[in-house]
Amino acid sequence: MSILVVGSVAFDSVKTPFGEAKDILGGSASYFSIAASFFSPVNLVAVVGEDFGDQFLDLFKSFSIDTRGLKRIPGRTFRWTGEYGFALNEAKTLETQLNVFENFLPEIPAGYRNSEYVFLGNIDPVLQREVLRQVKKPRFVACDTMNYWIQSKLNELKKTLALVDILIINDAEARMLTSEPNLTKAARTIRSWGPKTLVVKKGEYGVAMFMDGSIFGAPAFPLEEVFDPTGAGDSFAGGFVGYLAKAGRMDEQTVRKAVIFGSVMASFNVEDFSLNRLKRLLPSEIQQRYREFKNLTHFEVDDSF
Amino acid sequence: MSILVVGSVAFDSVKTPFGEAKDILGGSASYFSIAASFFSPVNLVAVVGEDFGDQFLDLFKSFSIDTRGLKRIPGRTFRWTGEYGFALNEAKTLETQLNVFENFLPEIPAGYRNSEYVFLGNIDPVLQREVLRQVKKPRFVACDTMNYWIQSKLNELKKTLALVDILIINDAEARMLTSEPNLTKAARTIRSWGPKTLVVKKGEYGVAMFMDGSIFGAPAFPLEEVFDPTGAGDSFAGGFVGYLAKAGRMDEQTVRKAVIFGSVMASFNVEDFSLNRLKRLLPSEIQQRYREFKNLTHFEVDDSF
Repeated sequence: MSILVVGSVAFDSVKTPFGEAKDILGGSASYFSIAASFFSPVNLVAVVGEDFGDQFLDLFKSFSIDTRGLKRIPGRTFRWTGEYGFALNEAKTLETQLNVFENFLPEIPAGYRNSEYVFLGNIDPVLQREVLRQVKKPRFVACDTMNYWIQSKLNELKKTLALVDILIINDAEARMLTSEPNLTKAARTIRSWGPKTLVVKKGEYGVAMFMDGSIFGAPAFPLEEVFDPTGAGDSFAGGFVGYLAKAGRMDEQTVRKAVIFGSVMASFNVEDFSLNRLKRLLPSEIQQRYREFKNLTHFEVDDSF
Repeated sequence: MSILVVGSVAFDSVKTPFGEAKDILGGSASYFSIAASFFSPVNLVAVVGEDFGDQFLDLFKSFSIDTRGLKRIPGRTFRWTGEYGFALNEAKTLETQLNVFENFLPEIPAGYRNSEYVFLGNIDPVLQREVLRQVKKPRFVACDTMNYWIQSKLNELKKTLALVDILIINDAEARMLTSEPNLTKAARTIRSWGPKTLVVKKGEYGVAMFMDGSIFGAPAFPLEEVFDPTGAGDSFAGGFVGYLAKAGRMDEQTVRKAVIFGSVMASFNVEDFSLNRLKRLLPSEIQQRYREFKNLTHFEVDDSF
């Protein structure tokens, strides 16, 4: 049931209308790992600098995340500075310092190579394939990407997608990837390139999931207080992949449930800065919010016609 | 079970990336009436000019819509010209000719004054209250509005909202009405002004419905071909109010079903220009798409935690 995740571990400085925090733990692999760890064991591969203190390593370990693949090397950790306006729907990046992440070449420790599930975080699609070259045949590979790779390395990205079972991206990325404004048509095109399952995140508007002959639509959890949206997509992916690995199945009903667990994890994550909310999250709260999602979306069949 | 609707009947000229049509039947009350007529009898109040041919009256009558309240007076019918880009999410208005609609003073025929259900289309909030003054106590009043009235007549609009049971608006209007970007908070504020039930339309992202102690979220039906979005919101309102009038109840499960029937009618409406799709729509197709909505949103409960 182990999940291998390869991605970024970073220090973020974030300003929202509700507060400001400096040098807090962030990065796609951090959010993914801690969200997924509520469901399945996680093997983490990333790179950090000398400024990455033991307390952060201890945090990962406290979630039973295997950090043998988290390399600490000379230099500074990847740093991102951004801010959100009142609408909270898009981050404005103020500064990106790649630092040690700039020359990241993922090395998969021997003990990780039998991971049954793989999540390729948002890194160069060439490196995503390099990760796949190093692992034995996993049960499934899920993948993220971003506008930067779509614009600068589309052909490499398509080569990676041909090897991927599940692509998890946002709606703007799906449209950009296919130059097609209609999401249903865009999904058909992307699925023809490789990923049998496509999960499209629409932020406050929820998620659409496309599989063979079926579309699933789920709203986002309606929160009155969204404190910091950073990491929402990565904690979604963590809950989604984490639940699938726990279930050990990829049938349609299981994937639908995974979409809801992903949405649950994202909804908790945005309630506080960094990983603060996930750090104090209880399994019973996950269970409770899953039930609330059921109540949010349920309607009865109709026989009035 | 009769529904009284007061709103606009117009001729639209519409250009989409898929085609162009001139002087086709449009207006909020046209879309509302024909969509609602699949569920309940409709009494129409609107004004048209001498250029409004009998064939359009005959169309309304073929849907058993009562047109005694549709006044034909000297002058030209309200005309709207607009176009949509490839994203189809927002109309660009090229021209509005109010014509006979400019001095519209709704007069409710005696035979309509016992209508049990009232839908106040998007007209001056002062006139919306004037309509309510003329009817006997209906079982419920539903209401639409738009950014123009929010910006120019907010206090009058609030007076109208105090008399309304259900407000049906889009998400940008809900945010503008309350100066609050968080939709859940905006809903709380709007409901405190009068309407116990708030339905927020989010276009391709579906609908959120707020009632006492409960939120319902439904995605839009995923269409590969959206031909012309004009009238989607009004045909939603027609299906929503039409189903509630047919059911004769306002309990939560009934209102949730009404949201789905509204979404069904909107999804058909956008498949062709003007009312062309609704004109050839069969009740069995409504029933079928309702079932497809159930399949789109269903997920199982979970007992894995």
